[in-house]
Amino acid sequence: MTETIPHWLTKQAYLAPNQPAIELENGTTLTFLELKQKSQIFARKLASLGVKNGDHIGVLSTNDVRMIIAIHALSYLGSVGVLLNTRLTTQELNYQLRDAKVSIVLTLDDLYPKAEQLDVEIVRSFSMIDDCMEKKIPLVTELNLEDDFTIIYTSGTTGFPKGVVHTYGNHWWSAISSALNLGLSKEDKWLATLPMFHVGGLSIYLKSVIYGMPVMLFEKFHVGSVHHAIMHRGVTMISVVTIMVQRLMEKLGEEFYPEHFRCMLLGGGPAPKALLEKAKEKLVPVFQSYGMTETSSQIATLSPHDALNKVGSSGKPLVPAQLDIINPDHENIGEILVKGPMVTKGYFQNQAANEGSFKDGWLATGDLGYLDEEGFLYVVDRRKDLIISGGENIYPSEVESVIAGLEQVKEVGVVGVENEKWGQVPYAFIVPNDPKLDKEDVYHFLQTRLAAYKIPNEIYFVEELPRNASNKLVRSKLLNLMNK
Amino acid sequence: MTETIPHWLTKQAYLAPNQPAIELENGTTLTFLELKQKSQIFARKLASLGVKNGDHIGVLSTNDVRMIIAIHALSYLGSVGVLLNTRLTTQELNYQLRDAKVSIVLTLDDLYPKAEQLDVEIVRSFSMIDDCMEKKIPLVTELNLEDDFTIIYTSGTTGFPKGVVHTYGNHWWSAISSALNLGLSKEDKWLATLPMFHVGGLSIYLKSVIYGMPVMLFEKFHVGSVHHAIMHRGVTMISVVTIMVQRLMEKLGEEFYPEHFRCMLLGGGPAPKALLEKAKEKLVPVFQSYGMTETSSQIATLSPHDALNKVGSSGKPLVPAQLDIINPDHENIGEILVKGPMVTKGYFQNQAANEGSFKDGWLATGDLGYLDEEGFLYVVDRRKDLIISGGENIYPSEVESVIAGLEQVKEVGVVGVENEKWGQVPYAFIVPNDPKLDKEDVYHFLQTRLAAYKIPNEIYFVEELPRNASNKLVRSKLLNLMNK
Repeated sequence: MTETIPHWLTKQAYLAPNQPAIELENGTTLTFLELKQKSQIFARKLASLGVKNGDHIGVLSTNDVRMIIAIHALSYLGSVGVLLNTRLTTQELNYQLRDAKVSIVLTLDDLYPKAEQLDVEIVRSFSMIDDCMEKKIPLVTELNLEDDFTIIYTSGTTGFPKGVVHTYGNHWWSAISSALNLGLSKEDKWLATLPMFHVGGLSIYLKSVIYGMPVMLFEKFHVGSVHHAIMHRGVTMISVVTIMVQRLMEKLGEEFYPEHFRCMLLGGGPAPKALLEKAKEKLVPVFQSYGMTETSSQIATLSPHDALNKVGSSGKPLVPAQLDIINPDHENIGEILVKGPMVTKGYFQNQAANEGSFKDGWLATGDLGYLDEEGFLYVVDRRKDLIISGGENIYPSEVESVIAGLEQVKEVGVVGVENEKWGQVPYAFIVPNDPKLDKEDVYHFLQTRLAAYKIPNEIYFVEELPRNASNKLVRSKLLNLMNK
Repeated sequence: MTETIPHWLTKQAYLAPNQPAIELENGTTLTFLELKQKSQIFARKLASLGVKNGDHIGVLSTNDVRMIIAIHALSYLGSVGVLLNTRLTTQELNYQLRDAKVSIVLTLDDLYPKAEQLDVEIVRSFSMIDDCMEKKIPLVTELNLEDDFTIIYTSGTTGFPKGVVHTYGNHWWSAISSALNLGLSKEDKWLATLPMFHVGGLSIYLKSVIYGMPVMLFEKFHVGSVHHAIMHRGVTMISVVTIMVQRLMEKLGEEFYPEHFRCMLLGGGPAPKALLEKAKEKLVPVFQSYGMTETSSQIATLSPHDALNKVGSSGKPLVPAQLDIINPDHENIGEILVKGPMVTKGYFQNQAANEGSFKDGWLATGDLGYLDEEGFLYVVDRRKDLIISGGENIYPSEVESVIAGLEQVKEVGVVGVENEKWGQVPYAFIVPNDPKLDKEDVYHFLQTRLAAYKIPNEIYFVEELPRNASNKLVRSKLLNLMNK
């Protein structure tokens, strides 16, 4: 039997109408009642554009309160939001729009010129929607936890981006699981700087309406203003990636955070031990976590209490979640499986990927790891060969398949290289068909085809690629070619 | 699609093995790991007795750690616990055992003589189970939220007790809803004195394994030791009924509770305004609530913040819950409907009651109430004519039908009368067939047929009962007969 709950934003507007829901960098706040009213008006305007129950609607926006309003508006219509990474190229976006069967894209006004290039029937900026008439229609009052709410694309080891479908239930359980782990206080205020088009960013705004908690919305991560907000604006929690921790720690210097600041939730890859030690010394409550788009946000977390005893661990799975390691090798390292009600039921219309990844309710993550004797998870390889650069995932296979599209390229291998600023950056090793091919040609070709952060920082031309006995590319040996 | 979660006790034993789960009055504690181990051993011993998946097992016990272990043990076998009110008579219990298809009853050693009288195949004290061998069988590792876990009987306006079936999901959602309302802190410790065979008592021990929170288990409510525990033993929350608040406030005298004591959750009927004012003056955080067995614990709660602005209100429904008022009269008072994933899916094998009470996912509570302009619930009548005495529900119709079993009784009406100590007590008005019938005869007859708290405090012999135009008994006019 399917569970239904009252619409979460309507509910908070009823429980706590005057409680701030969103606080902007400039100090403006929006209460839950105001957020509901604006979202419902926006929904009725979208309805006049023809948006209806079940439609897949693209949303192309950087962090902005109008993006939140748009997402809640879609929930009031029963439509599904396909959240688009603004850093992708037109070609990359068109692939996702086509795959997700999107015919309407909503966009931040500033991004309208970019959105106009997209291959969809209708493109509207948020301001253009504001100018529409409201259509008098009944709005959604109850959320069925099995209904689809968002689709967010993720690449995989195969290199083809896949649309991860999140139901209302996935997001609900993710928020509840996090609360069971981190606790819940009426004093909480979560600072959001991660992109809302990633699940880690989006999840903060959904926690907001599920908990009745204010979120401080920052368009971007500016170390100065984030530091100031933690020190002086009542922030109790923040979601970060490693690079942000580094910069915040530098900024913190000799100071200490206020006592009510109780959680720095660290996602997007492992943190260096030196950084964790520094954080402990400065009493910064860093919670290392493990999660992915498919798990709707973190699915395992390590508390600050254990951070130094268990360096490199991502902790234990959240209360409703389960982890398993299959096919362990002689060091007990195997593939990490995850299960739980926050895990996506599948990729959008992608039978091959679903059959490959899901079995008996378990999702095979492709990541390698092991559990220690106390059951703490250590992730050894974030998916095989995955490159994490400034919190963004880069799949070597995706970059390789784009570069291979250049006819002067015979074969290509891409690998991540440690980088002080970004954690990792991609390097490409190309075996050319044509000796005249140079780096400029490659960069020119990639410019329109790959988001900037995916474009290799270095390109090497080599005679052949390292391969194993079955002739498969061994990316881990690519770096040896640098000295040749 | 049905959600499964890892077994909640196994999970906490893994997440927080050394965290106290149960703290006894004498200071003894049991960690989550110990509680799991004892429960699993008890489960394997029950298995040797033949207890298996799907069986309905009666549990007759006052508050005792072995009762918690027994209940968790049943969950490890996939069996359903039928929790029996120890204050009921043999006849009352036999009705429930028969109705719930129970063939095995487990009981506290002290209650074994009482349990032996029951009409079931097998009766075992907890100690007798301890003496059994363990049967090596696989235990439950995952809980399916749709599976039945407990059955607790409640009487209704019709007077026939009905078995309220609670799934794991009902209990899970109740605990989560409460956390969303009250918050969740690693410092929490809940003091439990309410009977574990009522859902309000049971729910505390399930919150314990869902939150990873210690519960302080008291066999009974002794005002002195409860006061001491709040003052000196780190208690942050307690569930109470009105009479307990009164006695605690008297005991508190000129003192104040420590600041970490953050919630006195008040169920089981409305509180007098003077008491609430006294509580506010003494900074006692009383949360008035509304709930019933069918809602797995409270479904609406009023925060201390609103306690005096909204005197007599039970607050607003918890985040995943909904309330509605149907057939409102000219004062907007109508029947209260409730909906939400903590609401039972139905009464055990009772088609008539289910058809009468459930419609489109909504449960008709039989209670009367209204919502004010801000949406706060006011319960006007806790089910029509329900008597609440010291937190126990007494249905007049049930008492009447037992008294009517005396052949010298022609007709009878029962009504609640205000009582300083118990809130209310039942009075009976009897029209005799035989002028020789006296009070002693009635009390003698009732002694084996009704739990002590249901036996009328006063009995009046009258010539006729007040009836309305359709000849239905008007209980509200019974008290007028006292002066005749």
